[in-house]
Amino acid sequence: MSDPWQECMDHCVQVTKQAGKMIHEALQKDIAIMQKSSPVDLVTETDQKVEQLIISSIKEKYPTHSFIGEESVAAGAPSVLTDNPTWIIDPIDGTTNFVHRFPFVSVSIGFTVNKEIEFGIVYSCIEDKLYTARKGKGAFCNGLPIKVSGQDDISKSLVLTEMGFKKNPEVFKTMMDNMKKILTIPVHGIRSPGSAAVNMCLVACGSADAYYHMGIHCWDMAGGAAVVTEAGGVIMDISGGPFDLMSRRLIVASSRAIAERIVKEITPFPVGRDDTAA
Amino acid sequence: MSDPWQECMDHCVQVTKQAGKMIHEALQKDIAIMQKSSPVDLVTETDQKVEQLIISSIKEKYPTHSFIGEESVAAGAPSVLTDNPTWIIDPIDGTTNFVHRFPFVSVSIGFTVNKEIEFGIVYSCIEDKLYTARKGKGAFCNGLPIKVSGQDDISKSLVLTEMGFKKNPEVFKTMMDNMKKILTIPVHGIRSPGSAAVNMCLVACGSADAYYHMGIHCWDMAGGAAVVTEAGGVIMDISGGPFDLMSRRLIVASSRAIAERIVKEITPFPVGRDDTAA
Repeated sequence: MSDPWQECMDHCVQVTKQAGKMIHEALQKDIAIMQKSSPVDLVTETDQKVEQLIISSIKEKYPTHSFIGEESVAAGAPSVLTDNPTWIIDPIDGTTNFVHRFPFVSVSIGFTVNKEIEFGIVYSCIEDKLYTARKGKGAFCNGLPIKVSGQDDISKSLVLTEMGFKKNPEVFKTMMDNMKKILTIPVHGIRSPGSAAVNMCLVACGSADAYYHMGIHCWDMAGGAAVVTEAGGVIMDISGGPFDLMSRRLIVASSRAIAERIVKEITPFPVGRDDTAA
Repeated sequence: MSDPWQECMDHCVQVTKQAGKMIHEALQKDIAIMQKSSPVDLVTETDQKVEQLIISSIKEKYPTHSFIGEESVAAGAPSVLTDNPTWIIDPIDGTTNFVHRFPFVSVSIGFTVNKEIEFGIVYSCIEDKLYTARKGKGAFCNGLPIKVSGQDDISKSLVLTEMGFKKNPEVFKTMMDNMKKILTIPVHGIRSPGSAAVNMCLVACGSADAYYHMGIHCWDMAGGAAVVTEAGGVIMDISGGPFDLMSRRLIVASSRAIAERIVKEITPFPVGRDDTAA
């Protein structure tokens, strides 16, 4: 029997490339408009346009499939994962980077069936890197196979995470303390590129050895989760348990040893779930 | 009278491109060698080879000029800045990134006469971006003019800095506290790309609005300082005083308002100077 989802994946690659082109065009706009007048409006406009492009193109071909998209959810659509074939879409992952034209901006699409990720596509637009992964068939960047570094010594590792101001002072303190704990292991360094999907792909291709994050969404994770898993990486929950796409938290690493060491070092803070009301 | 230093700058561009090619070749080596066997040796080897290439090429053409190079200083050469025409060279800026093949790795060269920076070249090898700036003649990326974002509202800014483990607990605490203070202004975000020279160029081309750092060296700053200044950026000391190339600390920003706000928020820690014994 032929692979039932390969055709969906092929279509996904095409529509991702179109989405990337649209983002490129938006990035050509005057930086003054981007950063001064109303960056929020511009982001929303481009985000929505890109998501509509993706969803309408897929819906036309696969009318019975389900969708979870960042913009649709913002507009009130539910984000409960069912067994139905489901496209989980982040039209622009790294929106702050997008506003500033900081070089990591991506389109991320993951596809699940029976709640399992079947394939994932991440297109890092400014870098022009297209990451693709089909379950059981490996991960690729621009068509070339990629794999994680294989590093299992955390003291030789480059770790990715993101930091932002949190209104809850306890949460903010925990986030900063976690970063301190990782730095004092010590590790080679911490980098903060600003796009969850790209971060997972950087681990997938061996340019970093781990990435941890709390507070992200299923659409930030679905595409990259496929890429890093198929590249031989380890993905797990912040608690050390199995990765849960709707849990808003994850660790990915080049080896189980590094992932488990991060579990040991960091303290979780409450982030809610994507599939329950806030 | 024709520009006496333009010929030096043209030569610098050529030798920087050759250096970039050598780094590219080193990055092709098996990642297993890079990250497992003896990354330190590999870095040292490539660093030294690249610096020798640059210095020997320049020395042949300009035998009376002076040099301050990261590797030469490591080998015992002095790093006192004189009035003589001086080439300040970082053969690989972002060596940790180089080991991991994280995408920001650069060659950085600044050229001073009478202790003033006359031009600067930064080549971000993996991005293939060549930044060039001649005093009074603007800054360019791959031949196209660049300018800073012009942002003057820090709450809308993307800030760059680097974090690493410091053995001195007071210094480490100050570094982390500074980051907390910047985040709680709040700003759009903090990014840590891992190459000082690239960080300055990211501010120069408007992809970030500020960068501050304590503990870097003159060879990390000289090339990028020319680029960001010629792109319309502001450069100053951490104290708010004039930028001092040998002081091991700097703030660059898209506007004076943002630079001065960073001065107000952060606490300096002692880092010594490049031109005095440790």
